[in-house]
Amino acid sequence: MTNTAQPVPFEKAVSETGDPFLLTPGPLTTSRTVKAAMLHDWGSRDASFGAINKAVLQHLPEIAKGADEYVTVPVQGSGTFAVEAMLTSFVPPKGRVLVLINGAYGHRAKRILDIARRRTLAHETPEDTVPDLHRVEHLLKRTPSITHIFAVHCETTSGILNPVDEIGVLAEKYAKSFLLDSMSAFGALPLDVRRANVNAVATSSNKCIEGVPGLGFVICRREALAATKGNATTLVLDLLDQWQNLEKTGQYRFTPPIHVIVAFHQALREFAAEGGVEGRGRRYRENCRILVSGMRALGFRTLLPDHLQAPIIVTFHMPTHPRFIFQRFYDGLKERGYVIYPGKLTVANSFRIGCIGRLGEKEMRGALAAVREVLDEMGVHDPAAKAA
Amino acid sequence: MTNTAQPVPFEKAVSETGDPFLLTPGPLTTSRTVKAAMLHDWGSRDASFGAINKAVLQHLPEIAKGADEYVTVPVQGSGTFAVEAMLTSFVPPKGRVLVLINGAYGHRAKRILDIARRRTLAHETPEDTVPDLHRVEHLLKRTPSITHIFAVHCETTSGILNPVDEIGVLAEKYAKSFLLDSMSAFGALPLDVRRANVNAVATSSNKCIEGVPGLGFVICRREALAATKGNATTLVLDLLDQWQNLEKTGQYRFTPPIHVIVAFHQALREFAAEGGVEGRGRRYRENCRILVSGMRALGFRTLLPDHLQAPIIVTFHMPTHPRFIFQRFYDGLKERGYVIYPGKLTVANSFRIGCIGRLGEKEMRGALAAVREVLDEMGVHDPAAKAA
Repeated sequence: MTNTAQPVPFEKAVSETGDPFLLTPGPLTTSRTVKAAMLHDWGSRDASFGAINKAVLQHLPEIAKGADEYVTVPVQGSGTFAVEAMLTSFVPPKGRVLVLINGAYGHRAKRILDIARRRTLAHETPEDTVPDLHRVEHLLKRTPSITHIFAVHCETTSGILNPVDEIGVLAEKYAKSFLLDSMSAFGALPLDVRRANVNAVATSSNKCIEGVPGLGFVICRREALAATKGNATTLVLDLLDQWQNLEKTGQYRFTPPIHVIVAFHQALREFAAEGGVEGRGRRYRENCRILVSGMRALGFRTLLPDHLQAPIIVTFHMPTHPRFIFQRFYDGLKERGYVIYPGKLTVANSFRIGCIGRLGEKEMRGALAAVREVLDEMGVHDPAAKAA
Repeated sequence: MTNTAQPVPFEKAVSETGDPFLLTPGPLTTSRTVKAAMLHDWGSRDASFGAINKAVLQHLPEIAKGADEYVTVPVQGSGTFAVEAMLTSFVPPKGRVLVLINGAYGHRAKRILDIARRRTLAHETPEDTVPDLHRVEHLLKRTPSITHIFAVHCETTSGILNPVDEIGVLAEKYAKSFLLDSMSAFGALPLDVRRANVNAVATSSNKCIEGVPGLGFVICRREALAATKGNATTLVLDLLDQWQNLEKTGQYRFTPPIHVIVAFHQALREFAAEGGVEGRGRRYRENCRILVSGMRALGFRTLLPDHLQAPIIVTFHMPTHPRFIFQRFYDGLKERGYVIYPGKLTVANSFRIGCIGRLGEKEMRGALAAVREVLDEMGVHDPAAKAA
């Protein structure tokens, strides 16, 4: 680790389109070609756009190994729009959801259900702890009113990987409908919706498939979707109505974000060219490995032990060194071309650095070099030191 | 009017980005520079994007002459998402809405309210007829349970211009909260929200401001918005929660469609450069005038008399000539670089041609020439003829 009191001259890193690299959980750095796909206009009811949209919707269930049993229902908006659509379409007014919470996105799902007046039962664990599966089984056993289980695949709050397959085993054993928020994991972490007994999985355009933000998706087991009739309490978030209309007419009920969808179509091509989940996951795991080992070498501590860390976003404890000022750290990194992410933990002061998007070894090492430079500039030698 | 049985060779018209021109009610043809604004990536929580977003939100109330009394609440999704957010946030569970209907968008608002279990009273007139203001006043007088009035500014179903100012007078006289869907009119037709006593007006990114689709907006009277606390029955469509969070943190609650917003920011600059509502309205009125007189000269008949026709989209009766086949007409125009729009009337067989988007005299005359060519190709001399 180099260390000098002299300010070091630096060169700003820039992406193919001259932007800082986004080391965030999405919206993220996308390829130039994905963005360039948006340089056109399409009629939303014209066949040219219709064909692109159809290809996008047909591709997604394959990524989740859902094959013909599953269909994609797009939801205009963002990932949370898709999660709210999933919860309020799948859970009937008399349903009850066991919500597994270990971060902000689990809490958000519970809040959505509370507002929609669907009963819940929460199983909450700390942000660095996966659900207690024995406790979950106990709750399922003793609470027959539970109809659904909700879980988050990778909780972006901490970056923790939750045990989807094991939760799915319990869902099947107790005949509960399993609803999964796989927002920040979909496309990078393996998911087999049939094996995991998932009835619906929500994701969005601007995460690991590396598109731009503006569209959520819910990949639904066809039979389970058909059974949601009459559940929805909104027009725009009614998944069954959205799907039936797309099936019948090939068109959206309401104006789709065309440019976002066309960019996503290009992103899916690039995803396939990289080798799908396997190839993309490999690059992200390597990004994560470089980041974690490099940051540890600089004296930072991760929140999570390695076996719970998903290769999506890494939470670091905020340095205790008295000269460390987060805003200066953030700004210094941004000046050098790397945008990081604030923390969201309730249990500890922290910040986050993402591993996803159009980033590879070069960018991760560049970010680490920038971190070292900014630490030097602030005169912070050992980030974890308590006092000067 | 030329007329020949010989197929005429034609040159395909293309926009600056090589696309067909969209003579549709939006998504529409946007400028190259609007689309080029999307060739970058931004962090959704970074200050660079925050400043762009703030400028967008501050600009919109000025366009509606709302000044400081009004604020903009963005809604991810589409225009209908904004309408549903407006209706379900502003109308309390015990409210009752007088819904003025003369087309599909009035019906849609009623459907949203029905699903959300808000009581309604509908005043419906045919698609070519504005509301009967005497009847509206009568309903307001004899129905004290009415709390809100909903109207559509320009009903895209037919292209009819509804009398917003006059409805506003009644809203004020009877102390009702006036909610307006100005989706396809906003930015091109004059609107003074204070004079028209409008509490909230919904619009979207892909209409007369000429941005790309993906974001709706509700411009709200600040005081009326503050009074909506506790009304919303969803998380994502809760306008007050969305606004309070933006005010407090400068950030969206849920991932915004960044590229769409940055493109809209550029579209607003181009809108201002054209002279705002006045300049844009002037171009669209001229487009409409050229279109209507040209189509009439070719033998087409408009649904609406000129005094009810908004310069947004024009409905034409479907020709009765036996050789006229709409799909051939549509395809022939598309081959020549002009995408038109199917009809949506329930009362008559029709099609529509839009006047909005990055189109001017040249494109309108080009579209008319293409119409003439395709009619010739089909051997249709007088579109309104009953038999060969």
